[in-house]
Parts: sequence; structure tokens; C-alpha cells
Amino acid sequence: MSPFEPRNSHYAQRVHESFSCQGAMQTLGARLDHVAPGAVDIALDWSPTLTQQHGFLHAGMLSAALDSACGYAAFTLMAPEAEVLTIEFKINLLAPAQGERFRMEGRVLRPGRTITVCEGRAYALSTGAEKLVATMACTLMAVAGREGVRD
Amino acid sequence: MSPFEPRNSHYAQRVHESFSCQGAMQTLGARLDHVAPGAVDIALDWSPTLTQQHGFLHAGMLSAALDSACGYAAFTLMAPEAEVLTIEFKINLLAPAQGERFRMEGRVLRPGRTITVCEGRAYALSTGAEKLVATMACTLMAVAGREGVRD
Amino acid sequence: MSPFEPRNSHYAQRVHESFSCQGAMQTLGARLDHVAPGAVDIALDWSPTLTQQHGFLHAGMLSAALDSACGYAAFTLMAPEAEVLTIEFKINLLAPAQGERFRMEGRVLRPGRTITVCEGRAYALSTGAEKLVATMACTLMAVAGREGVRD
Amino acid sequence: MSPFEPRNSHYAQRVHESFSCQGAMQTLGARLDHVAPGAVDIALDWSPTLTQQHGFLHAGMLSAALDSACGYAAFTLMAPEAEVLTIEFKINLLAPAQGERFRMEGRVLRPGRTITVCEGRAYALSTGAEKLVATMACTLMAVAGREGVRD
Repeated sequence: MSPFEPRNSHYAQRVHESFSCQGAMQTLGARLDHVAPGAVDIALDWSPTLTQQHGFLHAGMLSAALDSACGYAAFTLMAPEAEVLTIEFKINLLAPAQGERFRMEGRVLRPGRTITVCEGRAYALSTGAEKLVATMACTLMAVAGREGVRD
Repeated sequence: MSPFEPRNSHYAQRVHESFSCQGAMQTLGARLDHVAPGAVDIALDWSPTLTQQHGFLHAGMLSAALDSACGYAAFTLMAPEAEVLTIEFKINLLAPAQGERFRMEGRVLRPGRTITVCEGRAYALSTGAEKLVATMACTLMAVAGREGVRD
Repeated sequence: MSPFEPRNSHYAQRVHESFSCQGAMQTLGARLDHVAPGAVDIALDWSPTLTQQHGFLHAGMLSAALDSACGYAAFTLMAPEAEVLTIEFKINLLAPAQGERFRMEGRVLRPGRTITVCEGRAYALSTGAEKLVATMACTLMAVAGREGVRD
Repeated sequence: MSPFEPRNSHYAQRVHESFSCQGAMQTLGARLDHVAPGAVDIALDWSPTLTQQHGFLHAGMLSAALDSACGYAAFTLMAPEAEVLTIEFKINLLAPAQGERFRMEGRVLRPGRTITVCEGRAYALSTGAEKLVATMACTLMAVAGREGVRD
């Protein structure tokens, strides 16, 4: 059970609609695996189009999916008229992102009217075993209006 | 003139070879614009395949290119047998990544035998004007051996 | 000359008043060295009360002074009724904070009505020479009301 | 039970000895509350000497204690001859650090021969209730020799 109460009963639909507008997520082959109040998971498969020089998932590609997981986790708790914007994030790479599939968890740590703080965790899946490969701290902002620009 | 003395006279060749092995950079349409001791620039064009939900460059895609710029800036100063690994990075998004082209600057702030610290700056180019849209702090590690895994 | 226009002509007085209310800055022996729109410097002397286990300035004590420098740099550009709050910061330690004196520079990189992003640089001074020992990226928030609490 | 095996059976003694050499911790009135392999807690009391301008614990003072908690958590797993050095940390402030006492948790997330990554959590205690007020991501380095300087 989620400790958070969404302000928008259509939060899941809004997340799916917004996600489908992210060209970057289609390029990653990323999909929404789980959408709940304050919690979003994104999955993607390893591909040679996403690698760094040793064939592992590129840290930046990993952070793109993890940033979206955190951003949409924050978005589930925002007001119906709000748009979500990433202000900053920090990622620690704990182990090579080596695997067949990857699962990105975005979790709200502290929701707010304007500022929401999320934690992200990236797991690599290989022959059934799951390994934590990265952690993220991410600060999101709710902005009004459809253009998604802060002032 | 660079304040840094490379330990490997073939540093530029090594950067180009490694860059060409990053599937992620080809997916971004990214190219090496500038390679000097302690300084690497990467350029890329806006594309609908790289966007977030408002059509701007996705923060994660931007961070992928900026991470590579920082990583290769560090790599130019490493020993011939070393491989480079990102340990962590932090990105602040200052303005929407809105433009026709983007330029990512990676600069070494403090080189070290094991740990190198870089600063990155991302600029959006639109109708000839350049705007700072993001800054990065990035910590890189030199590891021995070709597999690029730290212990 | 500063590129920034303060919204409050009494910005310097407000910074000095707020600084004098920070018990932490008195404990550090820190003083305001420079206050201009978007730029604040704080100086402090080495003391055995501020050290880590090798006798260098403790990274946390350094970050306390650097956080205040960044916070007050942001504060100089805020509206008269606003209070300033640190949302997050990230510090990279480039070299041991070894010296007789330290100078902390806080600079606004991107001011905003709600969110301001600053960069900080810490310098150690020893026998006349100045050395960069740390860099900070810091996100500040303007909040209304005197209690300084965000919602 | 800890998932980590210390390489030094005297790890707790080494942590206590090093902690007692940190002048900064004495200035904070901080004490070691808990020392186990990969886990260190530090406690401190509110004091007017540690405050920001609204009377809350200064974010930098909080980060000093949290940095030490993370650093010593990493130190418990290091080799007998190693010294510990903070490379970088990032802190997110979730709520005002308002309380009578504070508890800082440092936990190893990923130990390594050279690089260790820790997570920190800061709790404020007020009239018996405990509240999460800050999170930290911290990267530590093991260096050889007693002087604690990286190259």
C-alpha cells in the first residue's frame, strides 16, 4: 500500500500519456512497468544502440530511464494542472550495467506542492538474478501550464 | 594552450577509437567536435528521437552526451594502459534544452592517477545564439585492463 | 560589474543581518568578505576546532561555509519578502583543505523567481598562495514568510 | 546481522580513535552511537552554536556529521593500513532540521578496494518522534599511508 494520496485520480493515465510523448523513451525501448502513487518502474532491454565502449549500458542512457522513472513517480502526486520538470539529479554507478534487461525504480521520498525529491535505483537482470547497479537522487519541480518551463 | 600534459601521445586517437565503440553516441547522433588535453567537446542535433514530453532534449539524453564529454576529457590525461569509468555525476538543468543543436563541453578540473574530477557545460544553439542549459560535476576513475571494471 | 539586477535595494543589509543570525557561522569564525548582486564571499581561518582526523579542514565544515556563501549569493537577488532555503548541494573535494585561511566563493549561475542555482568554489590560502580545494553545485529556493519552511 | 565482512578485526577501535581526532566532531558535540561493519550512527544535540538564520540545524553542520557517519561506515570495511578520504557528497534537505536531537546514519551501499559508496540519512528527534530530514550520497576513497592525501 502506498503512503501517498494522489491529488489527481487520473494520475496513471496522465503518466502513460506523457511517457508516450517522450521520443527518448521510445529510442531506449523503455516501457512503463509499474505506476502507483509515488512509485514508477521503467524496464528496458540491453541493445547495442545503448552501449558505452565496453558494451555495457551507457551511464547516460541508464540515467535517462532512471530520470524518467523518478520524474513520473513525482508526477503521480502532482495536481491535475501541473507539469513536471527535472531540476537536478545525481547518479552513483555501483557496478557495470551489464545484463539482458534493466529495471529502473523511481520512488518519491518527499512530495511537495512545488518541489518533490525522489530516489531511484537501477537493477541489471542477468540469467534471472537482479543486481543493483546505480542509485539516483533527483529533484523535480511542479510547474503550471502545458509548456513545462520554469521561471 | 592547455595547462595539462598528456601521458599518452596518442590520446586523441584513443578518444576517437573509444568514442566510435559507444553505440549510445551513434544513437544520439553525437560527434566529437574538439579533443585536447583535458578538454573534449561533443555536438549533437535536436531530433524527435531524443525528446522529453514537451519536445525539448531529454535531460537524460543530454546527460549521456555530457557524461561522455567529461569521461573523454579525463581519458585524454590517463596513462596509455588505463581505461576510464564514470563513478558518479550530478547535473543541474538551468533552462529547457531547446534548440537546433547542442554543444557539450567536458573539462578536467583536477586530474589524478586514480580519480579525475571534471566539469561539464551544455549549450543549446538556436538561430545562432548559444545558451547555457546545464552544468555537470563528474567523477571518473582510471582502471587497468581492457574490460573497464573496477574492483 | 554584476550581470544581475537586485530586486531589493537593501540586499546587502539583509545578507549581513541574516548572516549574523547563523550561530553556525560564528562557530566557524566565518565572516562576510564580499557581498554583491549574485556574488558572496565568506572567509574563515584554520582552527583545531574545525578539523578532520588529519588536521585538515573537515569537508563538512568547509561545506557549511560554502553552502552559506551560495545561499547568500542567491539571497541577494531575491524579492524583499523572500527567505532563502537550501534544497540540495553537491560538493567535490579536489585536494586536502590545508591552509591558514580559506575563502569560499558563492556565485549565482541561474536566478529564478522560485529556484536559484549557484556554483561555489573553496580556496585554501597558505603562505600567500591560493589553491582550489573544492567545488559546489547548490540549489536554493525562495520561500515567503519569515519562518523559512517550504511546503 | 551485517552483510559485510570487515578486513580489520580492530575496525571499531580504529573508528573511535579517528573520530576522537576530528576537532570538528567535538565542536558539533557529536558522538559515535553505533559502529558495525558497514554501518555507523552519529548523534548530536541541537545547540544555538550550530544554527542557520531560523534557528534550525545548519545544513552544513548536518552534512558535516552525516559525512563523518558515511566516512566511518566506509572505514569499517577498509584494510588495516588504509586511511579514508571523502571524494564527494550530495545532500538533499527534505525538511527543516528542527529538533532537540539528531541522528545521522551512514551505510555502505557498495564497498570496494579503492572506492566505497555510502548512503546517509539524517533524522530529527522531537518530543519522541523521529523525522527524516536529509539524505546523502557519498563517495569515499581508501588511501595508503597515514597522511590521508590522494594523488
